[in-house]
Amino acid sequence: MDLAILLDKTLNLPLHQQLYEQLRQAILTGRLFPGEKIPSTRVLAQSLGIARGTVKLGYEQLLNEGYLETATGSGTFVCQQISDRTLPILPAWPRCLETSITAGLSKYAQNFKQQLLLSNPSKLDIDFCYWQPAFSHFPLHIWRQLTTRQLQSTDLLDYSSDLLGYKLLREAIARYLGRSRAVSCNAEQIIIVNGTQQALDLIARLFIDLGDRVVMEDPGYSSARRVFQSRGAKILPISVDASGLIVEQLPSTLTPAIKLVYTTPSHQFPTGAILSLPRRLQLLAWAQQTGVVIVEDDYDSEYRYGEKPIPAMQGLDLNNSVIYIGTFSKVLFPTLRIGYLVLPVGLVKIFAQAKRLIDRQSPLLEQCVLADFINERHLERHLRRMRTLYNHRRQILTNSLKSRLGENAIVLGDAAGIHLMVQLQTNLSDEEIITRAAKMGVGLTSAASFYLESNRKGQFLMGYANLETEIDEGVCRLAQILDV
Amino acid sequence: MDLAILLDKTLNLPLHQQLYEQLRQAILTGRLFPGEKIPSTRVLAQSLGIARGTVKLGYEQLLNEGYLETATGSGTFVCQQISDRTLPILPAWPRCLETSITAGLSKYAQNFKQQLLLSNPSKLDIDFCYWQPAFSHFPLHIWRQLTTRQLQSTDLLDYSSDLLGYKLLREAIARYLGRSRAVSCNAEQIIIVNGTQQALDLIARLFIDLGDRVVMEDPGYSSARRVFQSRGAKILPISVDASGLIVEQLPSTLTPAIKLVYTTPSHQFPTGAILSLPRRLQLLAWAQQTGVVIVEDDYDSEYRYGEKPIPAMQGLDLNNSVIYIGTFSKVLFPTLRIGYLVLPVGLVKIFAQAKRLIDRQSPLLEQCVLADFINERHLERHLRRMRTLYNHRRQILTNSLKSRLGENAIVLGDAAGIHLMVQLQTNLSDEEIITRAAKMGVGLTSAASFYLESNRKGQFLMGYANLETEIDEGVCRLAQILDV
Repeated sequence: MDLAILLDKTLNLPLHQQLYEQLRQAILTGRLFPGEKIPSTRVLAQSLGIARGTVKLGYEQLLNEGYLETATGSGTFVCQQISDRTLPILPAWPRCLETSITAGLSKYAQNFKQQLLLSNPSKLDIDFCYWQPAFSHFPLHIWRQLTTRQLQSTDLLDYSSDLLGYKLLREAIARYLGRSRAVSCNAEQIIIVNGTQQALDLIARLFIDLGDRVVMEDPGYSSARRVFQSRGAKILPISVDASGLIVEQLPSTLTPAIKLVYTTPSHQFPTGAILSLPRRLQLLAWAQQTGVVIVEDDYDSEYRYGEKPIPAMQGLDLNNSVIYIGTFSKVLFPTLRIGYLVLPVGLVKIFAQAKRLIDRQSPLLEQCVLADFINERHLERHLRRMRTLYNHRRQILTNSLKSRLGENAIVLGDAAGIHLMVQLQTNLSDEEIITRAAKMGVGLTSAASFYLESNRKGQFLMGYANLETEIDEGVCRLAQILDV
Repeated sequence: MDLAILLDKTLNLPLHQQLYEQLRQAILTGRLFPGEKIPSTRVLAQSLGIARGTVKLGYEQLLNEGYLETATGSGTFVCQQISDRTLPILPAWPRCLETSITAGLSKYAQNFKQQLLLSNPSKLDIDFCYWQPAFSHFPLHIWRQLTTRQLQSTDLLDYSSDLLGYKLLREAIARYLGRSRAVSCNAEQIIIVNGTQQALDLIARLFIDLGDRVVMEDPGYSSARRVFQSRGAKILPISVDASGLIVEQLPSTLTPAIKLVYTTPSHQFPTGAILSLPRRLQLLAWAQQTGVVIVEDDYDSEYRYGEKPIPAMQGLDLNNSVIYIGTFSKVLFPTLRIGYLVLPVGLVKIFAQAKRLIDRQSPLLEQCVLADFINERHLERHLRRMRTLYNHRRQILTNSLKSRLGENAIVLGDAAGIHLMVQLQTNLSDEEIITRAAKMGVGLTSAASFYLESNRKGQFLMGYANLETEIDEGVCRLAQILDV
């Protein structure tokens, strides 16, 4: 073990005394933890370039005073008991510096002034969480096998010179998107990123300047909105109906500049509406006229129940006006942190260089494992299974809502995705419902925060993918809250 | 397998004809790849909600025309032969849109106008690459064991509510830094990021506005410089001597605002000088006076040979004016993409929220594995081995330079890190040397691009960590090039 100790031979304080002082400080300030093993006198003497006897003197004093203890045979340790007496002392942040630093922060940092809670949300026993896939059904054993196989070789340790991401993965994704989403691209148009969030951040950086406008669905995906706003964009909200974004409402005037239209056509977030084909073609026509770029966030496209597939806009587009975003967070698992961008050819190099400057490249191991997972057909097998499972779970939820809440609950949106949106007939405020539900151990999400203009109440997101037997019980408790 | 096909019952083109046309298009445009298996008539009919007979009709025509082929028992496939005739057709980027898009790009995007080559650099048989650790000595089997163990449980699949990164890893890093680098922090001051590059990007975003000044060592780490410049910062270069950054040369006037001082004290990049203790204290004093934040990039601190350890500035600092950056890219391997920031308490929440908005969180699996790797003492055991190995390899290189180049090669910098900088006495230009070396299969890096003001020639970075037997041969070829 290393031990950073600083001795100054020019001082007239003897070296063993300096050593004693510094170790004592390290222990008291918590730099050295109770029970921590410290180097042998020989090793430390060597690494500090001093006589072993000097180190011995220092250690002995610390042993005598109970800062250190020895276990015969196994060496010298920081005393356990100390833990009770002293905890690590945190350097307090002096007022003056607090301000001076805050003054030093950039305009971008102002986005984070209203500080979020960093602590964990309380665990609920029935959480209708809208982003969770069925974790227990993920083929972890296969993933483990593929990972172990990849970790046989040291090839994946060095930087890849491939700025777009692991080539075999990009090729696998291109084929997968081609057949399942009618996306027309090749591997050289795909850039691997750390999930949808980084895809949005890259787009925002490369397109948005202060004051630019971004068209968003209202209600819409708030994490995307925050990214655009953090770059100084003005959000232009367009309403959503049962067929998704109401394209007729798009403005004809383009000043100030409209840079992007952000849309979630496969499963509009949060309403769950699927953007109809006519609307898709209409939107593409508008984009062609105006030259505005469409950001197609195709999340949840993998899950439709009964609905016929509608091809991605990217594939319907003939003018390279679509940037397509996909992610494996819901299809596989969120902490994988792998998503991708499908870009018009002319934008690939710029995006690749920006990604490189931002964090060089995404971790390689997962990319290799994922490529195998797709190429060996595990992905589509898993998707087929989950489609059946989620459809089943969705039906449990809708039936349960019908039987227990009747007219008081109207399910909105199409049969797709891994959550639904429900309109509750109640006089209670959304906050009241959330609080009462939490008290009963039930979690659901109000849609209010996703609205920009109209302030709808009583609309809630309910995820069902990671629940089954608990679903009816959860709805039952909800019914009690609403005293139906 | 999914297949996105769009049928329109309102058209008077029969459905089987529409199906035929779309599959044919998909095959010709490369959306469906040669040899790709396509769904059975039953499955497709079901997913499209049409009669199986209709699908059969469409398939038969494609079989007759040789677009599809059947393998008895195993199903229907896209014909292999097609591959020769047609390759995927890339949507060409219409001129008009090219311009309109480029017009749509942000000021930030202008950083990427001079487009880098995305292709791989040619492989050299003796590459004195300055960032590569000894890949073949990485304990891959242990890493594999720990990974397999972590992949036993589905716990690591869901988002962590911990915005700072995996808690056990942060605690392990805090302890490791405490004992080995005299860094004084606890786990709540550490944020896990995707390597040094993302750490720098976060710092630049949160501190730099257009026109702000950043002090950098000259020569200095160009990847850091590019990040600061991409945010519109003016770089203020300060020279480096044998004791590192010449602190006396720091400006006393702070207008326009100096936001950051970026330094690499443990192994100045690229010169290899270790910032002396007096200089460290001097720099901290300056920071205290001015309130400017010091960014301590402590890369390569793990590797000193013979030198006594000098504690990190973060631990010497009493005024929370230091942001400390560490990475595992050189200690373990680059594609791990795990680095960390040690922050003054007052900055933690802002950085955590920014990281969350940028890409939510770093992948969890590696964080869990790394925590085990550190806590089970593998990290320090590995470091001890590598220190011996690299010291040995460094000596091979220095001896070989002495014996083969004599006075024509002067080794600069201290005995630390995994590369050294050498001053070659020659009339050849750096480019000429690089080109000639490459012809002989030898790779080395000119230091010229790391200089901002003075245009030094004949200085080269030579990495030795990932080489051993080849080292002398490489230097021998170098001698021939310089005709010594």
